[in-house]
Amino acid sequence: MADGRERRLAALCERLTVEQLDGLLVSGAANVRYLTGFSGSSALLVVSHQERLLITDYRYASQAREEVGAVARVVIEAVSLWNGLWHQLPAMPPLRVIGFESVNLVHRDFQRLLESGTRWQWRPTTGLVEALRERKDAEELASIQQAIDCAERSLAVTVARISTGMTELEVAGLLESALRQEGSDGFAFPTIVASGPNAARPHARPGLRTLQAGDLLLVDFGARVDGYCSDITRTFAVGAVNAQQQEVHGVVRAANERACQEVRFGMTCRDADRLARGYIEDRGFGESFGHSLGHGIGLEVHEAPRLARTAEGVLIEGAVVTVEPGIYVPEWGGVRIEDDVHLGAAGARVLTRFPRELIAIG
Amino acid sequence: MADGRERRLAALCERLTVEQLDGLLVSGAANVRYLTGFSGSSALLVVSHQERLLITDYRYASQAREEVGAVARVVIEAVSLWNGLWHQLPAMPPLRVIGFESVNLVHRDFQRLLESGTRWQWRPTTGLVEALRERKDAEELASIQQAIDCAERSLAVTVARISTGMTELEVAGLLESALRQEGSDGFAFPTIVASGPNAARPHARPGLRTLQAGDLLLVDFGARVDGYCSDITRTFAVGAVNAQQQEVHGVVRAANERACQEVRFGMTCRDADRLARGYIEDRGFGESFGHSLGHGIGLEVHEAPRLARTAEGVLIEGAVVTVEPGIYVPEWGGVRIEDDVHLGAAGARVLTRFPRELIAIG
Repeated sequence: MADGRERRLAALCERLTVEQLDGLLVSGAANVRYLTGFSGSSALLVVSHQERLLITDYRYASQAREEVGAVARVVIEAVSLWNGLWHQLPAMPPLRVIGFESVNLVHRDFQRLLESGTRWQWRPTTGLVEALRERKDAEELASIQQAIDCAERSLAVTVARISTGMTELEVAGLLESALRQEGSDGFAFPTIVASGPNAARPHARPGLRTLQAGDLLLVDFGARVDGYCSDITRTFAVGAVNAQQQEVHGVVRAANERACQEVRFGMTCRDADRLARGYIEDRGFGESFGHSLGHGIGLEVHEAPRLARTAEGVLIEGAVVTVEPGIYVPEWGGVRIEDDVHLGAAGARVLTRFPRELIAIG
Repeated sequence: MADGRERRLAALCERLTVEQLDGLLVSGAANVRYLTGFSGSSALLVVSHQERLLITDYRYASQAREEVGAVARVVIEAVSLWNGLWHQLPAMPPLRVIGFESVNLVHRDFQRLLESGTRWQWRPTTGLVEALRERKDAEELASIQQAIDCAERSLAVTVARISTGMTELEVAGLLESALRQEGSDGFAFPTIVASGPNAARPHARPGLRTLQAGDLLLVDFGARVDGYCSDITRTFAVGAVNAQQQEVHGVVRAANERACQEVRFGMTCRDADRLARGYIEDRGFGESFGHSLGHGIGLEVHEAPRLARTAEGVLIEGAVVTVEPGIYVPEWGGVRIEDDVHLGAAGARVLTRFPRELIAIG
């Protein structure tokens, strides 16, 4: 942890000034972690020019104090976080206009703000902290690289152990156990292990299907280090590679390579999506690539920016994004190859290194 | 899966009539799954007396159609779920007053409802589907029992493999791998493996600390079967059991046993919490039990009801709740014993069977 935190809080306060806000109520867990280091699941954070207050509950009492240190005052609240907020807020240095996070506050809690009386003016905000998070600093980049390295070591160990006849669930178990062995402090998202026709579902859950010769096997997973996620997909052939598998895989691989080489900050998010989509369409598989090209990764596995046909905006310097084209054919299976790419000042740099060839395993 | 779904939808429609709603926009993923069987992470569901419409995206196209079957019309939307909603809603049988889920809709999306014009009146609702989910039917109870059995088999396998000198992360890896081997289709929540002083943190994450003789080892985890969660905690002694460990464990065990035996539907949620808390307070450890006694489990690992000092309401027949008293002593460690209990017509029935003695392992 530590210690871009003070710099991040200062950058946020600059934004508060621009937005004419006296303070911000931060309710998104990843935003709270980014600003304070607190990694628990339950917290409200108030940031103002004068003070930072973090409210959490008993389960996180010692953890919050250790993780947050001097960055914020920690209050442990027995009844509810909101109860704590209404107790603390009147005693804080004068706050009148306070922002709240429109995408991180459910309607019920928004109602609590409305019901809090006329003392505070609550203003919806969008993406104040998320915009800061989009540009990764050196420390964050190092954590993401560690999460990638951990995932790749785990995948290498797992691939060597996979054999025909195993269930998807067993493969997931091997992989997740390797992730723990390699030091992952959690899973970036539910592991996808999809074999044969199941690989035609981009978001399949592992099940009791056994690996059979002739299957494609799609594995999409991620590690977490210091809270930061990696996200990687490789597709394998079970037994031996056949011609159709090789062809489809070749198209996806070329699309992935092209996008990884050409993606740049300054490019629109739509143009980035086109890098791979245009190629896949030209090869006649456009209808079989129905999801977007990628997304930012960081403290959340899906964060800004989005690389999609329908996305707004421009890629900024310092973002880390996934590049994950795929081709899915119902009944037959699917191929996806996903890498993590840093959009640095000197150009894009692919952070993932696991081989991209269609390897036969099992 | 299948097939209380039609019964559940009928029960919901009865509630809509009572609430004078023409329809309900269901945005909570667990609620969508409960009503339709769809298990993906991204969906909007509209339920009215005339029709059910489920909107999801490309990643879930075939999965949604298979899982939902005839229960709802499935629309695959390319731009965004909201885009799909504004396209579909005008064509649905006349809807005027539509409820939305106040705790399952973020403020940003609530704004979309406000901006949708005067054609629809949007009304906040709370807990319409959640109240149905609180009472488990036989099929749900069977899934929870399977998730419990899966977790207990996994824990037995893991305990036999734990040895002094392993890291918490390695123990988590063994346990999670066993869960997959035993057929768990996911993890109910991030696994807690906390050794020595770390066990004093009720929500610790496993880390690189190695198990040492004299440690307490707290393991809190759950399996998922058909989407249904189990949630179980046991505390072990590494090497041998000492007197202080035995004493604290004895208090927690007696509190757990008492609450498991005496908890009943019809009791207030606060009185249920008192069953264990009163005992622990009488033994002088009241200050060391700072969290609530338990919570409902089902499609979510935390759902209604709450068994807590600050909870409102009464336990209803058919709920499945955790009973998880604990005592935490900073620097020293902690003990928690958690069981899952069905509040049946004939009284409470403890569904978990893993031994509760303080076992020495490693």
